[in-house]
Amino acid sequence: MTAINLASKLATFTDHWSPRIVAEYNGNDIMVVKVKGEFTWHSHADTDDLFLVLKGSLTIRLRDGDVHLGPGELFVVPKGIEHCPVAEDEVHLLLIEPCGTPNTGDVITAVAKQRI
Amino acid sequence: MTAINLASKLATFTDHWSPRIVAEYNGNDIMVVKVKGEFTWHSHADTDDLFLVLKGSLTIRLRDGDVHLGPGELFVVPKGIEHCPVAEDEVHLLLIEPCGTPNTGDVITAVAKQRI
Repeated sequence: MTAINLASKLATFTDHWSPRIVAEYNGNDIMVVKVKGEFTWHSHADTDDLFLVLKGSLTIRLRDGDVHLGPGELFVVPKGIEHCPVAEDEVHLLLIEPCGTPNTGDVITAVAKQRI
Repeated sequence: MTAINLASKLATFTDHWSPRIVAEYNGNDIMVVKVKGEFTWHSHADTDDLFLVLKGSLTIRLRDGDVHLGPGELFVVPKGIEHCPVAEDEVHLLLIEPCGTPNTGDVITAVAKQRI
């Protein structure tokens, strides 16, 4: 059993909005992802959505205002709340979602999460 | 709703081995804690135990070897596995545990977790 280095995991890929699973905690995927640009507005009916910024600046748009996050800052979008992550420049994130949660809130449009 | 700055939360206290709750995710406490020295050997029968190092160097002793963690590194101690965190110098950590989990694995010896 060894430590999981998040920067090393992030260095293994370059694509955006495609989370990689790096660990599991009680049936939740611990993921890293690179994002840039604007995602889609979506919500998760059954789960909160945790974002921790590792590098860069992220805006999470909510219907009643924006949340701005820098490195070392986190935000939990409560379940059922519509949100739209936006990154002007590339941002590196740690995400936590229950295993199998579609990243868009919709299994049709979701990307498959790879384990690395 | 605003971002949670982990360093700012950590700056509000100085004691060791006393986790502060900074957010909640699906019934789990998201906590920050400062640690220094050696904790007690313990295990959690019902939950994995996630450690993410924000600052400093942590060793997690396991019965079959040590795991060394630096900043930006995480480790999930599987449920039921005995472990003993050790920090030669002060370490800042992000922890995730189900709400109400005693930090020592034992409600008698556990410290109360404060929300900040």
